[in-house]
Amino acid sequence: MATIVFCSVNKTAQTTARRCSISHVKRLANSGESHLPLSCIHSKPVTFLPGTRWFSRGYSVRFMSQGTAGRSATWRTRKGALALSGAAAVTAAAAVAGFLANANHFQRAEMATKVSRAAEETEKEAGILERCRGFMSPPVTDIGVLQERKGEMRTRMEMLIMETQADFCKALQEVDGGTFKVDRWQRNEGGGGISCVMQDGKVFEKAGVNVSVVFGNLTEEAARQMRSRGKVLKGKDGKLPFCAMGVSSVIHPKNPHIPTVHFNYRYFEIEEEDGTKQWWFGGGTDLTPVYVNKEDAFHFHNTLKEACDKHHLQYYPDFKKWCDRYFYIRHRGETRGIGGIFFDDLDSPSQEEAFNFVKSCAGTVVPCYLPIVHKHLNESFTDEEKHWQQVRRGRYVEFNLVYDRGVKFGLATPGSRIESILMSLPLTARWEYMHEPAKGTLEAEMLEVLRNPKEWV
Amino acid sequence: MATIVFCSVNKTAQTTARRCSISHVKRLANSGESHLPLSCIHSKPVTFLPGTRWFSRGYSVRFMSQGTAGRSATWRTRKGALALSGAAAVTAAAAVAGFLANANHFQRAEMATKVSRAAEETEKEAGILERCRGFMSPPVTDIGVLQERKGEMRTRMEMLIMETQADFCKALQEVDGGTFKVDRWQRNEGGGGISCVMQDGKVFEKAGVNVSVVFGNLTEEAARQMRSRGKVLKGKDGKLPFCAMGVSSVIHPKNPHIPTVHFNYRYFEIEEEDGTKQWWFGGGTDLTPVYVNKEDAFHFHNTLKEACDKHHLQYYPDFKKWCDRYFYIRHRGETRGIGGIFFDDLDSPSQEEAFNFVKSCAGTVVPCYLPIVHKHLNESFTDEEKHWQQVRRGRYVEFNLVYDRGVKFGLATPGSRIESILMSLPLTARWEYMHEPAKGTLEAEMLEVLRNPKEWV
Repeated sequence: MATIVFCSVNKTAQTTARRCSISHVKRLANSGESHLPLSCIHSKPVTFLPGTRWFSRGYSVRFMSQGTAGRSATWRTRKGALALSGAAAVTAAAAVAGFLANANHFQRAEMATKVSRAAEETEKEAGILERCRGFMSPPVTDIGVLQERKGEMRTRMEMLIMETQADFCKALQEVDGGTFKVDRWQRNEGGGGISCVMQDGKVFEKAGVNVSVVFGNLTEEAARQMRSRGKVLKGKDGKLPFCAMGVSSVIHPKNPHIPTVHFNYRYFEIEEEDGTKQWWFGGGTDLTPVYVNKEDAFHFHNTLKEACDKHHLQYYPDFKKWCDRYFYIRHRGETRGIGGIFFDDLDSPSQEEAFNFVKSCAGTVVPCYLPIVHKHLNESFTDEEKHWQQVRRGRYVEFNLVYDRGVKFGLATPGSRIESILMSLPLTARWEYMHEPAKGTLEAEMLEVLRNPKEWV
Repeated sequence: MATIVFCSVNKTAQTTARRCSISHVKRLANSGESHLPLSCIHSKPVTFLPGTRWFSRGYSVRFMSQGTAGRSATWRTRKGALALSGAAAVTAAAAVAGFLANANHFQRAEMATKVSRAAEETEKEAGILERCRGFMSPPVTDIGVLQERKGEMRTRMEMLIMETQADFCKALQEVDGGTFKVDRWQRNEGGGGISCVMQDGKVFEKAGVNVSVVFGNLTEEAARQMRSRGKVLKGKDGKLPFCAMGVSSVIHPKNPHIPTVHFNYRYFEIEEEDGTKQWWFGGGTDLTPVYVNKEDAFHFHNTLKEACDKHHLQYYPDFKKWCDRYFYIRHRGETRGIGGIFFDDLDSPSQEEAFNFVKSCAGTVVPCYLPIVHKHLNESFTDEEKHWQQVRRGRYVEFNLVYDRGVKFGLATPGSRIESILMSLPLTARWEYMHEPAKGTLEAEMLEVLRNPKEWV
């Protein structure tokens, strides 16, 4: 499982845009056709089709989903806002322009990363309600509850994953021209999620960005399984109240020269018998190309490394190794892709610092991936290249169904939303008996890298 | 996993053909290009390409693989032999002609079943060496060893699974016009197998027929896992000598009106500390159509029921239920297909009778499936039908990778031949987010049957 986090570059612009354009958004919202009350989240699943708008029951304020109408509104207001938003936004605009012009991607990405700190500062000042307006749907937790618990980690993390989802979806829609289908679903046992899927687009064969926020009670055994180090936790009468949330995404492009990306950032809280709270973060971002491209690999890993280095110099080397170990298709003797970072059970040095690290990682997702998409967007490809992509997609399916802990846990858990768990599978895949690329081919070069993971930075 | 067993109809004809045409086969064999000694089975894997011949090291007698040359030889000699082989073969020939003329399939299949008993009688008289000549490659166990242990169950079962493989492969080649690639492989820990795969043929997208015969030592835990009832077995120093063999097959046709078939017949032997041998059989045949066809379903189930009823009236109802239960995609709430029969741990009423039951089941594979293939062979299909087939193929992959005990055991066992285990996966598959056929469509009718298994007979 992988996760997407908001693009800090766009954040400043968007936040400012939101501030300046509430009346504009409201006007657009009023021109829509259907009005879905927030309470509809209690009947599952609710599909947000393009042009659908949603409303906060408690606050009588309109929000917009990222359907056709919502999208045009958001982007229009953001463009308008760029002129008003000061130095940070101007730099951000330059970075966005760099992406769009498909020129000098990696330099632009670096700029974007530098800008992100200023954007984060601005972010802190924005209110819950204001931030929610940019989401793909209302958050899973009631907005009133989020406002009451503004300072709590579960609120901060839920806001982060919702923002991550919205920003990544918007960036992908911008490239593809297509629209995400937004499904909001509720879990009988507590909590729910928002699944955004774009299928058979112009650029993306299948793009899924999923948020889930679930809570309830776990058995001691299940709690032990959820934590990769398997720490023994003591519950009241064997039951442990828990809360788990995360954003996860897999993007399968059509063009075999554009790699598949996956990311996932998650947070767990478990309350023990004596009332103490155990918490930890997990996550990672990894790339699965069909062909080796050293420049892409360097850019991807280096962007992650820079984000890690800000927090601890050991993070990148450790989490890079962990990623290669985790995304390993044992029965094939090969990794799923060229890796990235992967970590779990992160509960140090402090909750604040761990959260900031996750936020940094998440903030690199767009600058990690979008420049690579733009770079290869218009490259032509042969039938043979498409064919090799399909064979690699088959291996992706093998990993996800046989080894991925998240998928296994999800499929085995009653009440899971299967469509959200399996949205990570590609639209199409292929299995050929005894497929082995000829020596000296680009396909053989890819296999060699998957069989012997490399250092890219 | 599924299994294929030899078609008794063809058996008489073939046996007679073999007797009458050794010189003819030898002549054809001599015209080939490469000579592979039987000892090459000790270097793994050995691929038998079309036209390759193989030889018995100990006996200096030539055999033919089922490559292009081998195939034409086999079929030519069989045709020639039909005139010589008496009443049984004439009836068999009529049944074969019925298949080929694509006329009145199900009546022909009934005839074939009736003929099989006479064919089995003839079978008993044929020597090991003679029977081996019809195989796709030399058997896994040395022919000399098989001859020495002619009366033992492991020999009788190995001969049955080899015959099953050869007869099914030949029947499929006959329909498709393509040729199976024959791979002979050896297992470091003891034993080996023969994998026959035809890929991207005219009729079959992917057809795999696999034999394996493995032996060695099992831990008590592994022995317990192999047996579905989980009986506790006591080994010498915790180790139990075992022997496991089986034939398994999955056939994925191109035309969505021709269903996928799977079968698997297997035998286990484990020796306990005190020297007593535990043994049991397992197996089954099941059908996975893309669209409901009641006539096909009746024919398929009825053919199995008739074979079961000869041995015990409770077998069909019990093993039909077991099949529906086993091939269940829990996370989807649907069965993989319309079932058939499935059984495991069969160790009663006697070894002889259990073997005869397995032989009967195996003998129905061709009459179960081939008439259905012929019936739909020339039916046209739309893009929408192909699309629905691809979605169903995705579910097939989900079952095989997530639930199938054989696949899971194989992937987790060091030294397994992965390509043979995963040859059951289709050439192509598709995953669509939230795919749900519209009410009243033929696709919805299929789903309804998968969600609520029916009685077909």
